[in-house]
Amino acid sequence: MRDITSLLHRITQRISINLREQHFDIHPYVERTIPLSQMIKFYAFYGITPHHPLNFHFSHSSLAGSYFLGKCSVDHSILYKSDIRGDELKHKGDIFPFENASITVHEDEAIDVRDSFLIKTLVHNFSHDPESLENFFIHDTLAMHYANIHGSPTEGCFMEPFSTVDLTTQHDCVIGRFSYIQVGEMSHLKIPAGTIWIRKPGAFNFLYRFPQHILDRYILYDPISGPPRGIFMDFLEARKADFKRVFDVMHIDPSIKIPAGASLDRYAVVKPKVQIGENVLVAQRSYLENCWMGKGANAQENCYIINSRLEGYDVTAHGAKLIHSMLDRNVFVGFNSFIRGQMDHPVRIGKGCIVMPHTIIDTPAGITIPDDHLVWGIIESEADLPHHSMAIEQFSRISEGLMVRDMMFEGDGAAFVHAFRHRIEHILEANGAYFDGIHNQGHAQKNRFIAFNTIQPYPDGDRMGMYPTIDIRP
Amino acid sequence: MRDITSLLHRITQRISINLREQHFDIHPYVERTIPLSQMIKFYAFYGITPHHPLNFHFSHSSLAGSYFLGKCSVDHSILYKSDIRGDELKHKGDIFPFENASITVHEDEAIDVRDSFLIKTLVHNFSHDPESLENFFIHDTLAMHYANIHGSPTEGCFMEPFSTVDLTTQHDCVIGRFSYIQVGEMSHLKIPAGTIWIRKPGAFNFLYRFPQHILDRYILYDPISGPPRGIFMDFLEARKADFKRVFDVMHIDPSIKIPAGASLDRYAVVKPKVQIGENVLVAQRSYLENCWMGKGANAQENCYIINSRLEGYDVTAHGAKLIHSMLDRNVFVGFNSFIRGQMDHPVRIGKGCIVMPHTIIDTPAGITIPDDHLVWGIIESEADLPHHSMAIEQFSRISEGLMVRDMMFEGDGAAFVHAFRHRIEHILEANGAYFDGIHNQGHAQKNRFIAFNTIQPYPDGDRMGMYPTIDIRP
Repeated sequence: MRDITSLLHRITQRISINLREQHFDIHPYVERTIPLSQMIKFYAFYGITPHHPLNFHFSHSSLAGSYFLGKCSVDHSILYKSDIRGDELKHKGDIFPFENASITVHEDEAIDVRDSFLIKTLVHNFSHDPESLENFFIHDTLAMHYANIHGSPTEGCFMEPFSTVDLTTQHDCVIGRFSYIQVGEMSHLKIPAGTIWIRKPGAFNFLYRFPQHILDRYILYDPISGPPRGIFMDFLEARKADFKRVFDVMHIDPSIKIPAGASLDRYAVVKPKVQIGENVLVAQRSYLENCWMGKGANAQENCYIINSRLEGYDVTAHGAKLIHSMLDRNVFVGFNSFIRGQMDHPVRIGKGCIVMPHTIIDTPAGITIPDDHLVWGIIESEADLPHHSMAIEQFSRISEGLMVRDMMFEGDGAAFVHAFRHRIEHILEANGAYFDGIHNQGHAQKNRFIAFNTIQPYPDGDRMGMYPTIDIRP
Repeated sequence: MRDITSLLHRITQRISINLREQHFDIHPYVERTIPLSQMIKFYAFYGITPHHPLNFHFSHSSLAGSYFLGKCSVDHSILYKSDIRGDELKHKGDIFPFENASITVHEDEAIDVRDSFLIKTLVHNFSHDPESLENFFIHDTLAMHYANIHGSPTEGCFMEPFSTVDLTTQHDCVIGRFSYIQVGEMSHLKIPAGTIWIRKPGAFNFLYRFPQHILDRYILYDPISGPPRGIFMDFLEARKADFKRVFDVMHIDPSIKIPAGASLDRYAVVKPKVQIGENVLVAQRSYLENCWMGKGANAQENCYIINSRLEGYDVTAHGAKLIHSMLDRNVFVGFNSFIRGQMDHPVRIGKGCIVMPHTIIDTPAGITIPDDHLVWGIIESEADLPHHSMAIEQFSRISEGLMVRDMMFEGDGAAFVHAFRHRIEHILEANGAYFDGIHNQGHAQKNRFIAFNTIQPYPDGDRMGMYPTIDIRP
């Protein structure tokens, strides 16, 4: 494993240089988290379809358990069970609107991962950076377990477990565990753990911070004491074995029938009593058990939907978990949210609700969120509701600002709600929720036929764990 | 399947032009043999090891179920369940002895398949053509079920089922079913079915031809009546289902223990009661059931060894089948030979015997071949033995020639025997039979750790069944 060891050393060195102003020592995180011997245990795989651009390049990298789609290149990097999904990249000739300008994309966009170490990280969407429309780069970066890099070119960053950076270009930043950042552009910041920060300059600024003692119960991480731990990790570990069969079998026959316009990824786990409605998208690495997925609902990557019912047109964004949860129509559950009721006391979420990214609703007594509410933070009982939710209509009326417990909002509530609503609509459209048999195709329809190729590293010798150089074109 | 249909058309046209002098109509063979819908059912796979050169290039091709190792490129071709094994290719700087010359190889040799259709064909070894040392080409060629192209650059040829061309460059030839040819170079010949022809100009010439009515029982083929049929095909079809599991599972744990210096390919079928000795090589697509593989024995690609015992240092060459057969030490069984005894009446083959390629021993009453005999043709009972075998020592004394039934030998018997013995020794060496824990490594040791990558075609659209362009380098 000589080569992979020196690759890891090189990546660590590069990230340390980028983060030198933060006085942040990256070494213990890199060195104590994933034993390199894991790197030869899992194959990587990439999707071949006529519906997605096909252009892969891999060199000097280790890719264990990682998934690739669309146009992407990986050089001098270690990717462990990560998802690099280049199916939403911009095409040559596309027009990118930015403020008052319309910028023409001059070549097909590519995801470019370089000198980085990504652990169970999702890299999705496309570069929202008007400065770098053709290159969705991830350079000199360490992203830990279940980080989301969503439409966010990233350079010289360290992302802690379950952190999300969304539509935000980041340079030389440290993002604390379970923080969600959507601010457009940022550099040289150190974001504390459990920060939810959504900002549109000149329009609004939403800021919430989880109480540290509560956050620690769900996700705790310091490199000295080993891998991340807490409720999130325990929950995932308990279901890990179910994924083994899915990855071990070459051709897998779906265990359930799905309608013609829906798609169920062959790398999803489907346990008994799962109903899939029309135009439903079930993405790879998602997990369904005893659940009803109504028309146009989706379960995105790393989602777990257990003993739950989604009436229809519900979005379960990357990494969200629903346990004993009843979602009325058009509910949005943001990234990495954790919604857990109990068998006789479910969580009920009314129609049109927006559950903000990285929200935790975890209640032994059950709870009902009324229709059309915005929800954030941590809700453990009815008593938390007034400080962690608000009718959307009421939120829209905020013109100056608002402070409720750990949440601070500045600016225009209507603009904030409008931005969210607009994005949810776009997600439903893109996922094919509105497919009518002919028009409005989305992921649910286009992902029905994907062939997966698997690639393996050198099995022994100096290059053990490293992958050969691979180029794939149409 | 628009693209694969036009590719097939193009290949057919090219082969027809090459074979125009033979007035040979290739169309029915191409069109009626493999339904193109089969081409999306099976993945292709290539081996990644530090012990073999790694350099693949695929373009405009369909590769269903095919296996690749070493340096090879495939362009504008259809390969169906074929084996392209580039692990014995020459390296830059190697010296190739030819007659009185020593030719230096000026770059790493590659297998170059182009404009060809290969069905369940084995392509092995390296170019023995002093005119083309760096390029082991297979161009404009149709090779049918279980053909062997062994160290034989091939252009414009049609090879019928179970035919072998060995160490022979061939241009614009038709090779009949179950024919074995080893003549150095040939062009514009049409070889009748069941011809065994081994010739070294100026040294010897061995020629045997199977009686047609007997051959027809074992392998019969005309495109009008569909795929090949007969005992060979029935035998293989009956065991086809056993390979399914081997190909369907990503990681397969060996069901039996094997010694440290032996290798058992993960794409071999191992049924109960199999014993693998030291330095044994069991290659991919071989099939073992209730058998004893003594030290240094091997089962090469497409071999079936059932209810049989190999004492040690026995070679079972590509495609050979042993059923109820007891082989003493140092027995050589050539390509595609079919040796079948019965439970209470096995075939016993004495030590040091050479069973020529494409020999059939198929006897309900059992038979014993004495030590150190050369065996050829068809043996159905003791009565056939005098006309189809001879003590090697006696054969070595032939100085002018010999005719026995359907066999004709001209030239120097000792040279013939020496060439065979020399080659068998080389095969044992190359396969690692003489590994002592440190020295004399061969395939049995080097193939212990191979990672296999799988590749799939486009799953739908115009390109359905075609593979993307793929380049793989170290």
